[in-house]
Amino acid sequence: MRQAGKADSPLPEHVEIVEVGPRDGLQSEPVFVPTARKVELINNLVAAGIRHFEATSFVSPRAVPQMRDAREVMDGVDRSTGAKFTALVPNMKGAERAMEAGVDALVLFMSASQSHNLKNVNCPRETSLERFGEICAFAQSASVPVQGAIATSFGCPFEGNVPVEDVVRIAKAYRDMGIRIISLGDTTGMATPPLVQERCRALREAVPEVELTLHFHNTRGVGLVCAYTGLMEGVTRFEASIGGLGGCPFVPRATGNIPTEDLVYMLHECGVETGIDLDKLVTTAEQAESLIGRTLPGQVMKAGPRLKTHPMDMVATANG
Amino acid sequence: MRQAGKADSPLPEHVEIVEVGPRDGLQSEPVFVPTARKVELINNLVAAGIRHFEATSFVSPRAVPQMRDAREVMDGVDRSTGAKFTALVPNMKGAERAMEAGVDALVLFMSASQSHNLKNVNCPRETSLERFGEICAFAQSASVPVQGAIATSFGCPFEGNVPVEDVVRIAKAYRDMGIRIISLGDTTGMATPPLVQERCRALREAVPEVELTLHFHNTRGVGLVCAYTGLMEGVTRFEASIGGLGGCPFVPRATGNIPTEDLVYMLHECGVETGIDLDKLVTTAEQAESLIGRTLPGQVMKAGPRLKTHPMDMVATANG
Repeated sequence: MRQAGKADSPLPEHVEIVEVGPRDGLQSEPVFVPTARKVELINNLVAAGIRHFEATSFVSPRAVPQMRDAREVMDGVDRSTGAKFTALVPNMKGAERAMEAGVDALVLFMSASQSHNLKNVNCPRETSLERFGEICAFAQSASVPVQGAIATSFGCPFEGNVPVEDVVRIAKAYRDMGIRIISLGDTTGMATPPLVQERCRALREAVPEVELTLHFHNTRGVGLVCAYTGLMEGVTRFEASIGGLGGCPFVPRATGNIPTEDLVYMLHECGVETGIDLDKLVTTAEQAESLIGRTLPGQVMKAGPRLKTHPMDMVATANG
Repeated sequence: MRQAGKADSPLPEHVEIVEVGPRDGLQSEPVFVPTARKVELINNLVAAGIRHFEATSFVSPRAVPQMRDAREVMDGVDRSTGAKFTALVPNMKGAERAMEAGVDALVLFMSASQSHNLKNVNCPRETSLERFGEICAFAQSASVPVQGAIATSFGCPFEGNVPVEDVVRIAKAYRDMGIRIISLGDTTGMATPPLVQERCRALREAVPEVELTLHFHNTRGVGLVCAYTGLMEGVTRFEASIGGLGGCPFVPRATGNIPTEDLVYMLHECGVETGIDLDKLVTTAEQAESLIGRTLPGQVMKAGPRLKTHPMDMVATANG
């Protein structure tokens, strides 16, 4: 367990950021954000240089009212830059709606743990995989790519630890359906550096043809440490949420997704390129905060960039 | 710059945690915490297994009213376990008072950047070093150990970047005075993984006989990433503040010290021992929060330990 990162090898030169705030973030926020504001948020992030979005989900409007405008959001997003917009789909009906709306890829999702899958999508894992086979065949016949998300990949709020074998088994099933981008979701913030190392290495071994995406929550403060660990493992695709939009469904005071601007700050400071303008990202995080009407957990949006200096007559300090 | 950690070598087996909440934390809080409550906080942390404290500072009560009860705090702390209590001293008078109060070591402090030293202690760096020589000689004649802190070791809020050579120069001066424990302070949260690597390596080379201590702030979200980086560099002594007590003197909304319980959580999850009971630490963080009357930034105190599971009928979730 006490194992540091992977050698003195260089970190990746470039990392892709997938912004999940419009979906994973807003879905957990109690206020309904008007469609025009969601679209504005996304398009400001496009202008900041983000090129990958989990834009919305095509789920039942009764089950997830916050996402009831999925089609209208897709109609409004700025596609002039070639930015890619995916959407979560829970079933064939959602897949059809998403494809009609012109998404760039469908995202299927299930949980690594049986209890969470039962709770979240109301069926056992095996049933999820059966349904996904049909959806993949349908999407592929229309040349729409499919991605796969695995929730509770680092632990389950009901069961505790999740065996790495369960994550690998689902990843292999996704791979066998033709899926080539798989996201490991840290649904309730249970990832740790050793678990990140273990799971990255196991998946690289088991499904080497797959591009791995890591999705961390900061629920226990180590979200960016896990991202840094993934970076050392050579992962080049990370999901994050602007300002840290979204919370934890289990603990009212806890935080959820890692803030996109904090992740980008860390990457840039480590010499890793993202193609993103951090200042514009911070401005958009501030917009997200006023949209939601509560203080968001992002830190860089409060403190400003690293080299923002202060006048010497500003305040008295008296400490070491 | 894009360089990952130091080889696939094991992390340290054991790390010493230095609790700085009673001094660095409380000093930045606007409310005066009654002496009895400070002592209770410290003694609860002793009971949780913490064995190193920056307990107070012997400074002018006018300049830092929060620390006006330095002697009374030292009189009240539980010394039955052998826990060590240090205090910051700015000058000879402070050193005399601290030694009369029976501290286990004095902590001298100055800044790596000239502007911050001028602002913080009202004299240039050279003057600080001259005064320290006298204090060290005096303390050593009484067999009281002296430690040295270097503020703004990773950046200065007035000057921006701080050359590593300035940190090394002060560390060598400390070493030449007989100091064997040196703390690098990330005063306003400007440390990054590459800077941590660079400074750890430079100091190990320049002052190999010194035990390095790292003190990070989470002002830009990467405090624990910097601690993890230091751990990979072989550092075995870290300062932190219970609950994340203390703020940033420059940015009202920004956070300060990394929370002790979040650091300990990360270390334990990485298989690094601390000798500390995390559950007791979390309980004490909650006490600190009610003492201060504002929400503290600690995450583990809100979310609970990693394997705290939830009943399946608790809430509806509908996301991936």
